[in-house]
Amino acid sequence: MKTRVCRLYAQGDIRIEEAEVAEPGPGQVLVAMGAGGICGSDLHYYQDGGFGPIRVREPIILGHEVAGTVKAIGPGVEGIAVGDRMAVNPSRPCNSCRYCLEGLQQHCLSMRFFGSALRFPHEQGGFRDLMVVDAYQCVRIDNPDVTLAEVACAEPLAVCLHALNRAGASAGNIAGKSVLVTGAGPIGALTVAALRHAGAASIVVTDLQDLPLEVARMMGATETINVRTRPERLEAYNEGKGHFDIAFECSAASPAVKSAVMATRPQGTVVAVGVAGDVPVPLNLVVGKEIAFVGTHRFTGEYAQAVRLIDQRRIDVRPIISSTHDLDEALAAFQVAGDRGRSIKVQLSFAS
Amino acid sequence: MKTRVCRLYAQGDIRIEEAEVAEPGPGQVLVAMGAGGICGSDLHYYQDGGFGPIRVREPIILGHEVAGTVKAIGPGVEGIAVGDRMAVNPSRPCNSCRYCLEGLQQHCLSMRFFGSALRFPHEQGGFRDLMVVDAYQCVRIDNPDVTLAEVACAEPLAVCLHALNRAGASAGNIAGKSVLVTGAGPIGALTVAALRHAGAASIVVTDLQDLPLEVARMMGATETINVRTRPERLEAYNEGKGHFDIAFECSAASPAVKSAVMATRPQGTVVAVGVAGDVPVPLNLVVGKEIAFVGTHRFTGEYAQAVRLIDQRRIDVRPIISSTHDLDEALAAFQVAGDRGRSIKVQLSFAS
Amino acid sequence: MKTRVCRLYAQGDIRIEEAEVAEPGPGQVLVAMGAGGICGSDLHYYQDGGFGPIRVREPIILGHEVAGTVKAIGPGVEGIAVGDRMAVNPSRPCNSCRYCLEGLQQHCLSMRFFGSALRFPHEQGGFRDLMVVDAYQCVRIDNPDVTLAEVACAEPLAVCLHALNRAGASAGNIAGKSVLVTGAGPIGALTVAALRHAGAASIVVTDLQDLPLEVARMMGATETINVRTRPERLEAYNEGKGHFDIAFECSAASPAVKSAVMATRPQGTVVAVGVAGDVPVPLNLVVGKEIAFVGTHRFTGEYAQAVRLIDQRRIDVRPIISSTHDLDEALAAFQVAGDRGRSIKVQLSFAS
Amino acid sequence: MKTRVCRLYAQGDIRIEEAEVAEPGPGQVLVAMGAGGICGSDLHYYQDGGFGPIRVREPIILGHEVAGTVKAIGPGVEGIAVGDRMAVNPSRPCNSCRYCLEGLQQHCLSMRFFGSALRFPHEQGGFRDLMVVDAYQCVRIDNPDVTLAEVACAEPLAVCLHALNRAGASAGNIAGKSVLVTGAGPIGALTVAALRHAGAASIVVTDLQDLPLEVARMMGATETINVRTRPERLEAYNEGKGHFDIAFECSAASPAVKSAVMATRPQGTVVAVGVAGDVPVPLNLVVGKEIAFVGTHRFTGEYAQAVRLIDQRRIDVRPIISSTHDLDEALAAFQVAGDRGRSIKVQLSFAS
Repeated sequence: MKTRVCRLYAQGDIRIEEAEVAEPGPGQVLVAMGAGGICGSDLHYYQDGGFGPIRVREPIILGHEVAGTVKAIGPGVEGIAVGDRMAVNPSRPCNSCRYCLEGLQQHCLSMRFFGSALRFPHEQGGFRDLMVVDAYQCVRIDNPDVTLAEVACAEPLAVCLHALNRAGASAGNIAGKSVLVTGAGPIGALTVAALRHAGAASIVVTDLQDLPLEVARMMGATETINVRTRPERLEAYNEGKGHFDIAFECSAASPAVKSAVMATRPQGTVVAVGVAGDVPVPLNLVVGKEIAFVGTHRFTGEYAQAVRLIDQRRIDVRPIISSTHDLDEALAAFQVAGDRGRSIKVQLSFAS
Repeated sequence: MKTRVCRLYAQGDIRIEEAEVAEPGPGQVLVAMGAGGICGSDLHYYQDGGFGPIRVREPIILGHEVAGTVKAIGPGVEGIAVGDRMAVNPSRPCNSCRYCLEGLQQHCLSMRFFGSALRFPHEQGGFRDLMVVDAYQCVRIDNPDVTLAEVACAEPLAVCLHALNRAGASAGNIAGKSVLVTGAGPIGALTVAALRHAGAASIVVTDLQDLPLEVARMMGATETINVRTRPERLEAYNEGKGHFDIAFECSAASPAVKSAVMATRPQGTVVAVGVAGDVPVPLNLVVGKEIAFVGTHRFTGEYAQAVRLIDQRRIDVRPIISSTHDLDEALAAFQVAGDRGRSIKVQLSFAS
Repeated sequence: MKTRVCRLYAQGDIRIEEAEVAEPGPGQVLVAMGAGGICGSDLHYYQDGGFGPIRVREPIILGHEVAGTVKAIGPGVEGIAVGDRMAVNPSRPCNSCRYCLEGLQQHCLSMRFFGSALRFPHEQGGFRDLMVVDAYQCVRIDNPDVTLAEVACAEPLAVCLHALNRAGASAGNIAGKSVLVTGAGPIGALTVAALRHAGAASIVVTDLQDLPLEVARMMGATETINVRTRPERLEAYNEGKGHFDIAFECSAASPAVKSAVMATRPQGTVVAVGVAGDVPVPLNLVVGKEIAFVGTHRFTGEYAQAVRLIDQRRIDVRPIISSTHDLDEALAAFQVAGDRGRSIKVQLSFAS
Repeated sequence: MKTRVCRLYAQGDIRIEEAEVAEPGPGQVLVAMGAGGICGSDLHYYQDGGFGPIRVREPIILGHEVAGTVKAIGPGVEGIAVGDRMAVNPSRPCNSCRYCLEGLQQHCLSMRFFGSALRFPHEQGGFRDLMVVDAYQCVRIDNPDVTLAEVACAEPLAVCLHALNRAGASAGNIAGKSVLVTGAGPIGALTVAALRHAGAASIVVTDLQDLPLEVARMMGATETINVRTRPERLEAYNEGKGHFDIAFECSAASPAVKSAVMATRPQGTVVAVGVAGDVPVPLNLVVGKEIAFVGTHRFTGEYAQAVRLIDQRRIDVRPIISSTHDLDEALAAFQVAGDRGRSIKVQLSFAS
């Protein structure tokens, strides 16, 4: 059996190729992909050949935000039928290292994560028509009205749900909190939706572009601020040592990190969601206001929760999907995805 | 100026009387009450002459769930106009004792709380046509569609929001959690609404009566169980050391306390909301499953949050208001309120 | 190879018998026991044939507080030499159930714990001269001055360290806290030592007997109160809604549970360490003071910490060992252990 | 009555002058200072005329680490006698702003803190022979063996105890934790002592100089690393995503911040104690390892705790006091204090 795959050879060198697909083995299923979202990390691999110390060192099939339909079932798989529509969790921790045995599977020392160049050989990803996956990675969709495009947003939504849980570990119940979100790309937008769902009292969102702010409003923002044209509106929140209980920093841009710390109240929490290398942090404010500046990384049980929220449309992700391109047009899709003024979440579609 | 008041002289002895009302002094406003909810504690004063060690030792005007319209404004009050509709926070901490200076105003050593017989002389309450209150107690209503009856539910809703925050201090973000609510009276029902608003993944509610369970479903319960007729449905959740991340025990009934602990998972949280005297707790389960059994008492900043949620109808409290009675019919109202098969929240209305 | 074992057939029926010992298999070592402490649960098995729903249903070798010397090493075991002195962790979680994969191995759904009648067939315990154990259960002792009798206290000390960590999850850093310990048996005494080591500002200990209070003082108590003869000294701490930041309830006696709740300050933490069935808890105080009443069960990583603290004598456990009896005198040892006026921790010694 | 004072006019311009002292008013006492430690902020005022946005804009008497003997007592003061030796808490929050009423007095919007140029007019400090202070600022010393020089270390020790409590809010009980301290100046050294007292399992300390590392070892460090000469010894702790549960970053130096984040394990806590302006933080590690990077600022109740620990010599601060200079030699004292290779804590002595 043959499948198309979207393989990155090096910076800027994406090729659509044909590859062989095996039959699903024991505990596996064959999935015909329906939709695959391009993540910021996919984009970094394509644009820069990697990010930070993580570099593409061999051809890699990209993609980890995927959903599809079961086409065949391997021996010993129960509770899954051909035709089932599935979100596919890209995360495969070892479940035996010390972090896994502490319940921190997201820090697994030998994590196998779809389309990741962290380890060598690289983990191959999900931008392909057909793929064999482990049955335990599949979470079924029950709602026939929900599209696989929506379901493919479960992975980034899980990232956001985990970010809220990280905030909650520091700040307690999110409901009733006053929240800032800096950066309204796909993760910022889904964080807004997750905050709205979690009962945040107010959700102020900043960005440098108008399009993402419009989408953020659709996702539940109570106020949006273009900090390129109206910086004073954000600065007003710095009054009295800062206003927000929690800030989610989703841009990884230095000025945004600084402004998030400035606008957060004493003993408030700033969750660092966006990733960059070394970023200047205003230590005098972090110390003087006793800010908890907390990192968040991927997810564990939040993946299944994200699927349920999408499946029940308790969170409606449709406003963030800005365009869809057939796998053959992957190159164009990556170029569109790189333009924040025109795109939020760009997805690929497949031959199913 | 004269006003009717609802004064309890002793167990079972409620009288509607006329009393003098002073002009509002500095920092005060005169409020014409619009609605006043009968709380479980009001009912205990009426039915039993008190609860636990707290006894009615002198005539006391009951009532602390109140909302009304401003009729006159004392010297020095700013930002309030005659005609403003107001939720009236019944809580007046001293703001200078050691608990207040730790931010635990709900534990103020000299709290003055409307209609409370805890201290002597008793604090007089809000079941009266006209009342002078401190301006800082008033939270304005902006939405003309919201009735004062709804607004009078802000106080019990604040109790529930605080209960969620207590849960959050132990269990983190409420969103995504699997939750049990035992007891579907007014507090149980509003807890369900608060949980729905906070994004709980599932909300299972138990009671011995069908009416409260119907109301709980309207407030957002995902499953309701009459544990008198279908106890096995709750027991199924005891499997595998328990299912729920969090339980809110709102009944104060011994069997419910026990069942909440049984159905809660290891290291889960049981929030004790309902009050009784000594209650048997299954210590072997609390210890063996490392349950956090956590009390919750009143509220601080949650009152203003409750008003906003009602004002914006983000929480719709109308399903819990089961009947309304003119102040002259207070006796009948208290009797109806005592019948859980017919009533959830019984309110008084006033001459305004 | 033969070994003596201490086997309980039924309530009151302890027999010292001879049994066969196999060679250590792959990953195993043969240990010659040096000391074994009699735990409250051993005593319950002996005195009552079990506790709560856990009953002895077949002959069981008791004992889980054990330490010994390595006599032989199975294939594939590295880093262990014959002659090494070892604390033996009695806890063998499955590391694959859902609780293990959350880092909650103490709640493992198929835990195998030395000398426990919870599951059937029962897990056989460590009161025996020779025993084959898994190599990963062994923690080496480096300090030649420390006796195996001391090392055998690692298991109950681990229970106490875990109890402190449970308190810390609710109350933060233990250092500087004002603490009450109700019940000064072995667990109470070791909790005192753990609190002293963790920098508690004051440690008030209560009991009904003088001997345990004397030992508690040796372990670091700053005040001891015999609540049978001087109850008013404890009651003085109830003033102003309660004094203690944290209470460790180690007696499982109803009056002690109540007094711990009464003497604990608003939003304080009561850690339930002692186990009993249903115990009356003053719900009005738990609710009114927002007490966190938190269970604690066994330990995970605290076992290795306990061994290190004993090995380095940072905690000196010797004052709690009240008597030692050869395995042949196990029956007498169990009888002595049942007399709280004469005994704290009773240990068995073995033929090594 | 006259007193000498140590007044800073501008960067580098310290003058010992004579000033008038009033009689103590109601609620006040007159204190003859015994010892006063030079803090890093005093040094910044002297060396740089301020730090960050805080600038000396008028002559200011420096000094906030002070202890002395009561010389006279104002009207209405009870429980204090002439001759009492006192630690003097330099912190005077308003107890009525919103942060004070949340129990966050260290963030008081109108804090009056000895010797601080934050507000204008500046708060005058304690480097003076005689000073009138509020009675509530005084904490009595009971132990006649403890010197006022030791007692003057209560303020920086309180800072460290608060830092541990901030860590505890994130990481729970400190006892048993593996801890890194970067920077072994006075705050680093006292943090080590506080960690030792709180039962940290291991305390690894880094600095660029040998003298502070020697002192750190006296204060309880289990390992000291000169990262100028032996950087590889710290780097070894980066293995497996990092070793330490908690790091206290006390240097405010960029490389130390980075190394603290690198050596801290997933979901570990880095407490930022040292203050600087913008400092580059490795965002990819904070995010990827979900580090909680938590600020800490001054103290509230920890001041009284610090005094007790010093008074009882549970923490012995003497090793950090590297030299003492009469107030007349203040200039020389400030110069010595600026040389980290020779000094840890430099103190002034007074005419009492």
